[in-house]
Amino acid sequence: MAISKPLLHTCLSPALLNLYDVSNAVVVIIDVFRATSTIATALYNGAKCVIPVDSVAKCIALGKKIESISAGERDGKIAEGLKYGNSPFEYPKEFIAGKTLVLTTTNGTKLLHMALDKGAGSIITGSFPNLGAVCDYLLSQNQNVLLGCAAWKDKVNIEDMLFAGAVINRVKNNFSINCDSSQIAETIYNDANENLFEFIKQKNASHYLRLSNYGLEKDIQYCLTADVANVLPFYEDGKLLVHKK
Amino acid sequence: MAISKPLLHTCLSPALLNLYDVSNAVVVIIDVFRATSTIATALYNGAKCVIPVDSVAKCIALGKKIESISAGERDGKIAEGLKYGNSPFEYPKEFIAGKTLVLTTTNGTKLLHMALDKGAGSIITGSFPNLGAVCDYLLSQNQNVLLGCAAWKDKVNIEDMLFAGAVINRVKNNFSINCDSSQIAETIYNDANENLFEFIKQKNASHYLRLSNYGLEKDIQYCLTADVANVLPFYEDGKLLVHKK
Repeated sequence: MAISKPLLHTCLSPALLNLYDVSNAVVVIIDVFRATSTIATALYNGAKCVIPVDSVAKCIALGKKIESISAGERDGKIAEGLKYGNSPFEYPKEFIAGKTLVLTTTNGTKLLHMALDKGAGSIITGSFPNLGAVCDYLLSQNQNVLLGCAAWKDKVNIEDMLFAGAVINRVKNNFSINCDSSQIAETIYNDANENLFEFIKQKNASHYLRLSNYGLEKDIQYCLTADVANVLPFYEDGKLLVHKK
Repeated sequence: MAISKPLLHTCLSPALLNLYDVSNAVVVIIDVFRATSTIATALYNGAKCVIPVDSVAKCIALGKKIESISAGERDGKIAEGLKYGNSPFEYPKEFIAGKTLVLTTTNGTKLLHMALDKGAGSIITGSFPNLGAVCDYLLSQNQNVLLGCAAWKDKVNIEDMLFAGAVINRVKNNFSINCDSSQIAETIYNDANENLFEFIKQKNASHYLRLSNYGLEKDIQYCLTADVANVLPFYEDGKLLVHKK
């Protein structure tokens, strides 16, 4: 008897999340530029945990209440009232090891809280720096998967779709995929794979320009590099912690 | 002095329409399988006009009130209470010339009414059978454009995105395009262009199978063929009429 495979879907925008059943599913929060890349990096570099909060006010309040680094970004820049931003390079080992990072970002933390409110089975975060860890986890679970793109203010973006495509490319044989968004994501990834940075530069003109105008070309390069911070951030009791195998 | 070009955006799902400003813009309603292909075909074959309505009940009521063919589809099949469906092959010249077609479909007519409610500058419908007419019109107007994909129950689909990509491929030099969805659409179209039917068959397994199970493989072939019903359906006073140049 054929054993049926778990389902995999890709949701291209938080505004489409309500179309998908996430109960009992693993939801992968994807915010390539730069929230989920930074979360993986901070944890890889030894942060005790990352607490994602959905507003700057909560971020400041929590930062005062517990011993932590409070950080966040709005529209690609450090949010007013916060000292640290959303660049992975702000969180090297020497700075972040052993510390708690309270983080708010434009799109990524918002989607995470939406998935939580919808009763997701479990929530992890994905980015190229921890691509391998994400795929290993999905392959080990035999559960339905939703790849959730954080997008940009609900508008579909290329970079989150590329990461969804990268995951699909690696795990597809273990899932049943009847989802056009997933097919599109993998097709785009296969086109771009040879040089993700050049593809983004060419196709994603406006967002690329916004970030590179802030001097963040180095961030973009890093956020498109696979497996350089290969841990699995797993959400539990309000915190993202490294998942132990 | 450089003259600034009008803007072009692609909206991949009706659920994302609220993210786009459609006032003073030309909105192209895209529902490749099969509403907008059928609308182009009926008008090309001499229908007096097509009246798109958003419910089966309205379709039946209007069909009783005015002399017309009332037709419609739900979930890919002829809607209960209606005699005609949503296949372009149901509307040859001998049958439809001189007649009014009242049509309701799952996704396409819904999006058209949403765009209308949002105050779109003007509304036309697009499909491969009238690709050339759509592009000629967009190039002649010097107005902002929104390519609106009808999708499938708000889920992004490949075929509508492919048509958006085909339009972008032909008109892009005349527009300013800072829109990741448009970039993705054109990339996918360039991948698929050599054989759209094979691409759809391969990538769009579930929808392809649903339609081909109803014996609609011939419809799919037709709906992916460019310029075989090359008229421009233009929405005015509740009706889609052939636009006169």
